[in-house]
Amino acid sequence: MEMVRIDVGQRSETVRRANLSSIARELHAHGPLSRSELVTATGLTRSAIRGLIGEFVAAGLVTEERAAPLGTPGRPSTVVRLRPEQTVVLALEISVDSIAAAIVGLGGVVLARARAERPRGHTSVDDIVADLAALVAELEVGHPWRQASIGIGVAVVGVVRRTDGCVSMAPNLGWRDEPLGTRLARALVTTDRIDVANEADLGALAEHRRGAAVGASNVAFISGEVGVGGGLIVDGRPLTGAAGYAGEIGHIPLDPDGLPCRCGSVGCWETRVGEEALLRLAGLPEDGGHAAVDAVIRDAEAGDPRAVAAFEEVGRWLGIGLAGLVNVLDPELVVLGGRFARIHPHIVGSMAAQLERRALPAPRSLVRVVPAELGVDAPLIGAAELAFEPFLSDPATWLAIRAGRPQLASA
Amino acid sequence: MEMVRIDVGQRSETVRRANLSSIARELHAHGPLSRSELVTATGLTRSAIRGLIGEFVAAGLVTEERAAPLGTPGRPSTVVRLRPEQTVVLALEISVDSIAAAIVGLGGVVLARARAERPRGHTSVDDIVADLAALVAELEVGHPWRQASIGIGVAVVGVVRRTDGCVSMAPNLGWRDEPLGTRLARALVTTDRIDVANEADLGALAEHRRGAAVGASNVAFISGEVGVGGGLIVDGRPLTGAAGYAGEIGHIPLDPDGLPCRCGSVGCWETRVGEEALLRLAGLPEDGGHAAVDAVIRDAEAGDPRAVAAFEEVGRWLGIGLAGLVNVLDPELVVLGGRFARIHPHIVGSMAAQLERRALPAPRSLVRVVPAELGVDAPLIGAAELAFEPFLSDPATWLAIRAGRPQLASA
Repeated sequence: MEMVRIDVGQRSETVRRANLSSIARELHAHGPLSRSELVTATGLTRSAIRGLIGEFVAAGLVTEERAAPLGTPGRPSTVVRLRPEQTVVLALEISVDSIAAAIVGLGGVVLARARAERPRGHTSVDDIVADLAALVAELEVGHPWRQASIGIGVAVVGVVRRTDGCVSMAPNLGWRDEPLGTRLARALVTTDRIDVANEADLGALAEHRRGAAVGASNVAFISGEVGVGGGLIVDGRPLTGAAGYAGEIGHIPLDPDGLPCRCGSVGCWETRVGEEALLRLAGLPEDGGHAAVDAVIRDAEAGDPRAVAAFEEVGRWLGIGLAGLVNVLDPELVVLGGRFARIHPHIVGSMAAQLERRALPAPRSLVRVVPAELGVDAPLIGAAELAFEPFLSDPATWLAIRAGRPQLASA
Repeated sequence: MEMVRIDVGQRSETVRRANLSSIARELHAHGPLSRSELVTATGLTRSAIRGLIGEFVAAGLVTEERAAPLGTPGRPSTVVRLRPEQTVVLALEISVDSIAAAIVGLGGVVLARARAERPRGHTSVDDIVADLAALVAELEVGHPWRQASIGIGVAVVGVVRRTDGCVSMAPNLGWRDEPLGTRLARALVTTDRIDVANEADLGALAEHRRGAAVGASNVAFISGEVGVGGGLIVDGRPLTGAAGYAGEIGHIPLDPDGLPCRCGSVGCWETRVGEEALLRLAGLPEDGGHAAVDAVIRDAEAGDPRAVAAFEEVGRWLGIGLAGLVNVLDPELVVLGGRFARIHPHIVGSMAAQLERRALPAPRSLVRVVPAELGVDAPLIGAAELAFEPFLSDPATWLAIRAGRPQLASA
């Protein structure tokens, strides 16, 4: 339980702030809601809801309208609707094969989005930041986001120190200790808050808020790309660890005398289930990328024994590692994302057999393993959710700031 | 952030309850405190503190006294002191080699304690429950705890479903799906709340509240006994998982084609670092128990190469598994408990080398690995803390119940 330490003087202001936050979260998560639905969802009284909604309306963040009559008698309830273009975030993603940007309105409405392929391999932080800034400049032409912006979220394929947006290590990009947040702020010419996080952590957040894991409280999200990343949800909250480095599940040593890993260790899980492992098993060049993975899928679907066996072996090691995570974390749900969602039908059999063999009966009997729902954009959607978080936790502060600002012309 | 959903009518009662909880937690954690220290610790006003302490005094749970003058001018502050014998829990432990019981007063004061050896191996739940009841009956002679009891906590070497105190699996005892909580209630002839949890989880709780991990928010507690158990603290709270099964770190498959594990799987971590692995490496019978482990320690201290090598190999595998946990959880602190605390000097070198090699640089640079402080009683102390939790979360309810009860004669 979070402690509530409230003294008489601060009491009503603290309560007002918490209640504004409850309402903002409900509307952000569930879309337009009637006042009655907000009463049910928040436990607040009808009159309290009316007053709090009034504050959002005055700031131009929501509208209220009479619901269309449904043929039932009685007064129609008022529907409360966010105005997504009034409160937006910029979401950015730096992945192995591509970069992406999106302008996302409150409620998770994607107002504009762009993705550009990038060649694999080491790239300087200068080049990537410049490419992202160019992508944002393109989006900006049709969607002037800056005046309504409440923050920027960034997903990156690397280990990130959350406190300052420094990328401690990104082997796929060749980065060590790169101050990505600071560099982006300069390139985008902004003083907005910038939150940077690992792309698998944000994929997990996205699937939890808007995908396969909605409503689940204990979730392991496992994302297979070139490497293997993870994002963990514990008691409904992202597990960040002491400094935001948690979730590097691809680097559990499951085969300690095995193959060298790009992290410098030996026999990490990703040396057995990453893209290179699959391609090696299928007899293809390890650096074949997307196209080669697609070829293995086609071959397996055509019944080619080597492709089928390659998937079975990847599935076997996926199940071995999953069993360890299930025993340690007792999740109710495991979500397989990235490449794993795509190859799920081909690996599920051998994976399930290992899970059955190696997970303890009690946690195994409870856990479901499902493919992710949000596809390639999951980390980008998660980056937006990350950027919304300060607003959702304390909309009152933003209402106060907004009160000093003119409303947008587009309103 | 936990949501605060408080409406006008409930507001002051909710705040009172939360504030009583804050004060109870401070006194329980830190012992006698002056009113000034309580003001600092809780952020409440002096007058609010006075009123709330008054409630505890009226219920007979605390006393107030003038602090002895310290030669400084000004009014001496009033010291608030718990009366441990007024609010007690019964703590029980079922371990591989022994059973134990303690009567513990609020503030963590052990009022009475007893431990009895038990032979290793499978034992019926009937026999163990009867032995525990006999141990409690002995304690009870000198310490009539029942009238002041607020609950019972039980630590057991097994996988526990927290919701109903059912032991899903305890390979060391030979139990499957045993309703331990219910059986204990009957044997002890009590209607007190009984909370049952895994002994390593409770060892972690104890080290976090009163041992090596006080003040740390992200902790992995790793307990080596016959098997290997774990308890994880995430953001200051125990990680229980979806059904309370989390923390079974001994069953991470680190050596998937290795030795059979007592859980039914193959190559679990504990097959490499458990007591049997150490004894096997040292050339002793695997079932030699405590005495044999003591012999290996003596041999290693005398420089016997086989004993030294056995510890090095156990340390190596301990470091391999630790690296995986550090990469997944990013803890600030790893606490080595149980047998691992005892053999720590002999394993720390090879363990640290593997951690250095296999943990990612960022989380590795932050984590400290230390031996546990509470020794063999850690799970018993954790069982007491578990039983105090409902009171600490909401002392107001207990004050109301207490108001209907006569005060104890021993008061």
